Amino acid sequence: MSNTQKFKVIYDTDPGVDDAMALYYALAHPAIKVVGITTTFGNVTVDQAATNALYLTAIANRQVPVTKGVKKPWVKAGEAPPHTIHGADGMGNLPTRLATTNQLDPRASAQFIVDMARANPGEITLVAVGPLGNLAAALKLEPELPRLLREVILMGGTVIEPGNVSPVAEANIWNDPHAADQVFTAGWKLTMVGLDVTHQVILPVALFKKIATHHQHPATDTLLHAVNFYAGFYSGLYPHVAKIHGCFGHDVLAFIYLTNPELFTTEQGRVRVAIDGLAQGQTMMHRKAFEYAQSGWEGHVPLTRVCLQVDAAASTTVLEQTLMGNWLVP
Amino acid sequence: MSNTQKFKVIYDTDPGVDDAMALYYALAHPAIKVVGITTTFGNVTVDQAATNALYLTAIANRQVPVTKGVKKPWVKAGEAPPHTIHGADGMGNLPTRLATTNQLDPRASAQFIVDMARANPGEITLVAVGPLGNLAAALKLEPELPRLLREVILMGGTVIEPGNVSPVAEANIWNDPHAADQVFTAGWKLTMVGLDVTHQVILPVALFKKIATHHQHPATDTLLHAVNFYAGFYSGLYPHVAKIHGCFGHDVLAFIYLTNPELFTTEQGRVRVAIDGLAQGQTMMHRKAFEYAQSGWEGHVPLTRVCLQVDAAASTTVLEQTLMGNWLVP
Repeated sequence: MSNTQKFKVIYDTDPGVDDAMALYYALAHPAIKVVGITTTFGNVTVDQAATNALYLTAIANRQVPVTKGVKKPWVKAGEAPPHTIHGADGMGNLPTRLATTNQLDPRASAQFIVDMARANPGEITLVAVGPLGNLAAALKLEPELPRLLREVILMGGTVIEPGNVSPVAEANIWNDPHAADQVFTAGWKLTMVGLDVTHQVILPVALFKKIATHHQHPATDTLLHAVNFYAGFYSGLYPHVAKIHGCFGHDVLAFIYLTNPELFTTEQGRVRVAIDGLAQGQTMMHRKAFEYAQSGWEGHVPLTRVCLQVDAAASTTVLEQTLMGNWLVP
Repeated sequence: MSNTQKFKVIYDTDPGVDDAMALYYALAHPAIKVVGITTTFGNVTVDQAATNALYLTAIANRQVPVTKGVKKPWVKAGEAPPHTIHGADGMGNLPTRLATTNQLDPRASAQFIVDMARANPGEITLVAVGPLGNLAAALKLEPELPRLLREVILMGGTVIEPGNVSPVAEANIWNDPHAADQVFTAGWKLTMVGLDVTHQVILPVALFKKIATHHQHPATDTLLHAVNFYAGFYSGLYPHVAKIHGCFGHDVLAFIYLTNPELFTTEQGRVRVAIDGLAQGQTMMHRKAFEYAQSGWEGHVPLTRVCLQVDAAASTTVLEQTLMGNWLVP
């Protein structure tokens, strides 16, 4: 595939273990060109997220612009980063880090997104896998953004599967529900890759061990360390995950949807976010042919494509083949 | 079954077509003694609800105390009664009504519930099938009410099945979410019979025609008229309901749970209600073994037994056998 046929992706992220996995999938995949990484608070502080994005690209010998974005939610009080899930450093508490020299792009993440969209109208795919404050900020800077981007794919939310921060809410959306509702009503081509599919894909640590053994490289060693920590958390919560000492695929599924949409079963409908109260952060989807008595899902609400099923085995194979490829050339 | 072994039931209701069906099931069933009917706004105004409760008991030749209760929600603005579902009179727009003489008990519904509970400690089952304002008011009058009642069974809410007034909310809970959350956190023995099961039971109009033909009685004629109207509404919304010209069982399932709990699959968990915003009226259930980051489901929240599956065919048979019984003796 020639360079011009590649998906030009801005990756909005809060690395985070599954964010790192997703980043390396994107860097490794021949059909994806990562044109920028915009960071946000979420799994870690935004400072740590930016540090990790710089580090992960540096040790993989890639030069990709990295920007720092929003450090807290639009309205609600911020939540403490979940150190038990991703480690205090977001990478499962790495014992040491290599010396690296990559530097931040000085622009705010939202400004970077707008600049890139204006410079490449209709060409940029935005893959967002954290709280959605950078996207909401970019919409404020450039209301035409939905028409300047090719599409938006986000990891977040859930429709049928129970939530992971409340019975009904997924963490990314819950971390900034006000921003998320703006994203779901902005009118861009939008696909939601939520817990409905990410909880179907359980990735064994053994897979990342195989990849690290194959490459013998700091990037895949770092990923293995992080995934092992992450799997420890999930194995403590979900007995069926513990059985294979694995973790959910979460963020990487957003990129697998980009490269292999044929592996997903989707449905289109109007999606809104509960912004406060006990249901805050819930993504609610209108799936009926009739109108509801409760207002908020009228015809002006744009459609979101929601992933409801995924071929887990095939997704895992795609992930393995991509990361086993020849992408870590110095 | 002797009289002392019967379930002594206060029926809190907003008749309403399925309310009428449920009332006649209760009056017809040999194991149930309806010791009072407390009415609320909901499917109709509270005045119409009280009128209908008096009428339905009168034409069935029963003397049961009927009280009038709350006429609007605790906090939110009231919704207009859904005339397209139950008819403007709640009975599918009856062309005429017989002359009757039953009179209201002068007490408020909440006071009646408290009086009966105090007089019969541990003996009264409260079956509530409308918005829950009377129950919330009774809790204010008598904080010990949860220990004075035998149990509470309510038709309302939904956990997995999509809502009927929004993607996530069921009408009874949505009509007064603040009252409902008080009911779910009061600490009585509580069972929720929601859309998860009531949408599994589709009752054909033909069944009520058979019952009316068998009895040749004003009570069952009235029920047939009302159900036929009600089925017209549901057949317009749900193609699989239209196929048999039927309606959902809704309220009567609360009584079938009382008499035949073996037909239901239930799960216990903490249930809370979203009180406002787009998710208002949603019943959210904590079904995991771990604690969530979102507060509100801590250990002090009492358990609710939630019906998740029902044997629809057996429930329909129980309903038919009960209403075909010898209960309309003058």
